[in-house]
Amino acid sequence: MEKIVSLAKRRGFVFQSSEIYGGLNGCWDFGPLGVEMFRNLKEEWWRTMTFREDVEGIDAAILMHPRVWEASGHVENFTDPMVDCKSCKSRYRLDNLIDELSIKKKKEILRSLDPATFEGRLEDEKVIEEFKNRVIGDVVSNILQNIVPCPNCGNQGSFTEARKFNLMFKTFVGPMEDSSAVVYMRPETAQGIFVNFLNVQNATRQKLPFGIAQIGKAFRNEINTKNFLFRTREFEQMEMQYFVKPGTDTDWFEYWRQQRMQWFIGLGMRKEKLQWHQHEPHALAHYAKDAYDVEYEFPFGWGEIEGIHNRTDYDLSRHEEYSGKNMKYFDDESKEKFTPYIIETSAGASRSFMAFLVDAYAEEEAPTADGKTEMRVVLKLHHRLAPIKVAIFPLVNRDGMPEIAKKIENEMRQHMRVFYDDSGAVGRRYRRQDEVGTPFCITVDSQTLQDQTVTVRDRDTMLQERISIENLLNYIQKKLTK
Amino acid sequence: MEKIVSLAKRRGFVFQSSEIYGGLNGCWDFGPLGVEMFRNLKEEWWRTMTFREDVEGIDAAILMHPRVWEASGHVENFTDPMVDCKSCKSRYRLDNLIDELSIKKKKEILRSLDPATFEGRLEDEKVIEEFKNRVIGDVVSNILQNIVPCPNCGNQGSFTEARKFNLMFKTFVGPMEDSSAVVYMRPETAQGIFVNFLNVQNATRQKLPFGIAQIGKAFRNEINTKNFLFRTREFEQMEMQYFVKPGTDTDWFEYWRQQRMQWFIGLGMRKEKLQWHQHEPHALAHYAKDAYDVEYEFPFGWGEIEGIHNRTDYDLSRHEEYSGKNMKYFDDESKEKFTPYIIETSAGASRSFMAFLVDAYAEEEAPTADGKTEMRVVLKLHHRLAPIKVAIFPLVNRDGMPEIAKKIENEMRQHMRVFYDDSGAVGRRYRRQDEVGTPFCITVDSQTLQDQTVTVRDRDTMLQERISIENLLNYIQKKLTK
Repeated sequence: MEKIVSLAKRRGFVFQSSEIYGGLNGCWDFGPLGVEMFRNLKEEWWRTMTFREDVEGIDAAILMHPRVWEASGHVENFTDPMVDCKSCKSRYRLDNLIDELSIKKKKEILRSLDPATFEGRLEDEKVIEEFKNRVIGDVVSNILQNIVPCPNCGNQGSFTEARKFNLMFKTFVGPMEDSSAVVYMRPETAQGIFVNFLNVQNATRQKLPFGIAQIGKAFRNEINTKNFLFRTREFEQMEMQYFVKPGTDTDWFEYWRQQRMQWFIGLGMRKEKLQWHQHEPHALAHYAKDAYDVEYEFPFGWGEIEGIHNRTDYDLSRHEEYSGKNMKYFDDESKEKFTPYIIETSAGASRSFMAFLVDAYAEEEAPTADGKTEMRVVLKLHHRLAPIKVAIFPLVNRDGMPEIAKKIENEMRQHMRVFYDDSGAVGRRYRRQDEVGTPFCITVDSQTLQDQTVTVRDRDTMLQERISIENLLNYIQKKLTK
Repeated sequence: MEKIVSLAKRRGFVFQSSEIYGGLNGCWDFGPLGVEMFRNLKEEWWRTMTFREDVEGIDAAILMHPRVWEASGHVENFTDPMVDCKSCKSRYRLDNLIDELSIKKKKEILRSLDPATFEGRLEDEKVIEEFKNRVIGDVVSNILQNIVPCPNCGNQGSFTEARKFNLMFKTFVGPMEDSSAVVYMRPETAQGIFVNFLNVQNATRQKLPFGIAQIGKAFRNEINTKNFLFRTREFEQMEMQYFVKPGTDTDWFEYWRQQRMQWFIGLGMRKEKLQWHQHEPHALAHYAKDAYDVEYEFPFGWGEIEGIHNRTDYDLSRHEEYSGKNMKYFDDESKEKFTPYIIETSAGASRSFMAFLVDAYAEEEAPTADGKTEMRVVLKLHHRLAPIKVAIFPLVNRDGMPEIAKKIENEMRQHMRVFYDDSGAVGRRYRRQDEVGTPFCITVDSQTLQDQTVTVRDRDTMLQERISIENLLNYIQKKLTK
């Protein structure tokens, strides 16, 4: 992972946000190559979704009416429990406080709580998790008061009651900073789709089943950001909400599960690095009837990159209740009126970006010019995701080669993203392009001057072919769209 | 303007944000057609900029380190003066308060201020503006106390001293809501480019002059939002910052002025609706040596859609000062070290969207099927901006026509955004597509069944041509790229 983060920075995929000021925790900037790859990724998703006749796109604002988040349940439920130390005013997330306890302390807590269930099993991670939920859910403040000292000042018995800490970033619109002016930075893009359901349906005359797709940023005030782009405070989502008639929801849920897994595989992600994680019934979100995560195996373990959820009629019903607007759909054919069910496909754009980057990263042996081998780093990105499609090298920077190479560059540049490089040995130039995933390198050499052909070298096979300049664009375009 | 806003909503270009909850002032959502047109517009800009070999793209986070906004001057200067009424707690923007005064009141203020300069000239708009600045800058609270009653409660003499109200939205990262946790939602995208100058230059090995381009959202807590997408709280910018050697800045400034004006014209905007507005020396921003706005003539008057600024070395110098990091550039050729000057091209993406929409809107006479004329509404959008490229109609919904039309639709859909419509008279279907700017309508009629040709109708000329289905895709693609 460190190698990838370092490559990402050095070659301009991802920089730390505001790095010259020491960075802002949980925020990242996409550099020149990163932004191209990220745009390619989002474009693939957008085309896959909105080129369908049954899916419409939208782009809703990040700031929404605060009632939206009451209806969605985020104001009430999107929280972590926190306690303050009354002595030194330090604030802690309760689950972290419990995580950091020694086994001895945990056993001490057990004695006052529920020894029958947990005694002797506290080495098991699942048991710990359950134990933690019990502690948080039950009688937490008493236990903390008696047993746990403040990690900062060491004082015992000075914790406040646990309070819910909401993970939404809040701000104020207008000149007054009071509760009537509070708005939130959206913690998910989905609600922008739900509240626009009727607007979209009226404008497009779509009939059920149909979907609404959106790509956009969301924000969560995570206390613990970690793992590069995996858990961040600012991130981008690619969400599609598919509205269906109740009763057909299970079939559509299955359909979209298959579609979405196939999408990742179709863009070259290795099957063996992907798995399904079904949410167990007790772990389902309050709105969900069924939920599967697409998980990718990152260097730090399996992590969710997309969730497919059967959200039932929860969302539209809640917005009907909170807005007083009728959110029902009238079915022309059956003459019925009902609240549609929603099948959600919610992909993390930033997380998918990282997964594709990780998945493409390889170190392997490659032959050198003098017949030996060396290690090369190569990003085996799908052609459509690669930030640069073609690099163009004059073998030497004289004898008319730069002129021909520049001419090729200028023609190619009209059609795709290209990179021109005339410095260093050709072997090194290949390595530089391998490292950023450029599928093809074109070299203008002395033979070019005689017969108007160039070599085209394939990133993955490292084989070279001679192609006439005349057919070059056509040859490359065909390869790229394969 | 009302007609355009109404069309925008009805056909799915732009909806009010959170409309079912009464909307959120100053925020708008792009609907299915709006998001396509907006994406086309942004893609045009992105290609124009980043397909150049001297411009790199980035995508920086919305949340940045708070020191960025101290260095940029936003914490100190990005403010409006506000006063509170001590009696009823209402808050006012000072310039609005003054705007709403009667001429009589203004004269009253003059008598206590500076009658020599203004007496007798208060009908002139420029004089009013100057008068206002003097009042705000000078002795405002005394004047307010004695002369102006609170518009809400009518009490006199109860205003507080004027305070600076910062237009940046602020929020808190982490669990504590205190001053050490304050971060801002960026009020402009430019700073994300400046702080990444060295990162980008190192990663790409670009040499001066070169530029960095970015498209992204920005947020301003405007007290008075107005004119649809023109003054909003959440908006999108398309900014390119071009780094040059001092001394070459004036030439590059002129170069980019021409480029940018040409961009709007090249995408079909009418020349006579565009003008330059040069900032007068006393009105220049503190960082600027020269500044021109591209203005478009909206129904509500001329308004800025892009600014081209010579920002000098202000930005990099300030970030060097505040971050302690060396932001200088080393010139290989001259062996000099210096702080680059920056030429900024800062376009409002949302504003440009509105300008293109307004500019394309036309009402004109069109012939009907029975030889009469009727009014049609047509969006004469540039082909590349049009959300839907082609509509496909079976003349009647039987006799094999729908099957052929569907086949054409499916083939076209692989290459461009299409719309299938089989309901209503063909004349009405044309009107529906004219209204959203679809360049071409394809009709499958009875002749199609015989000779495998269809009619292709041009949105602007309303002329129809018969084209064989075999050549159709090629024909349309050629027309679209013209």
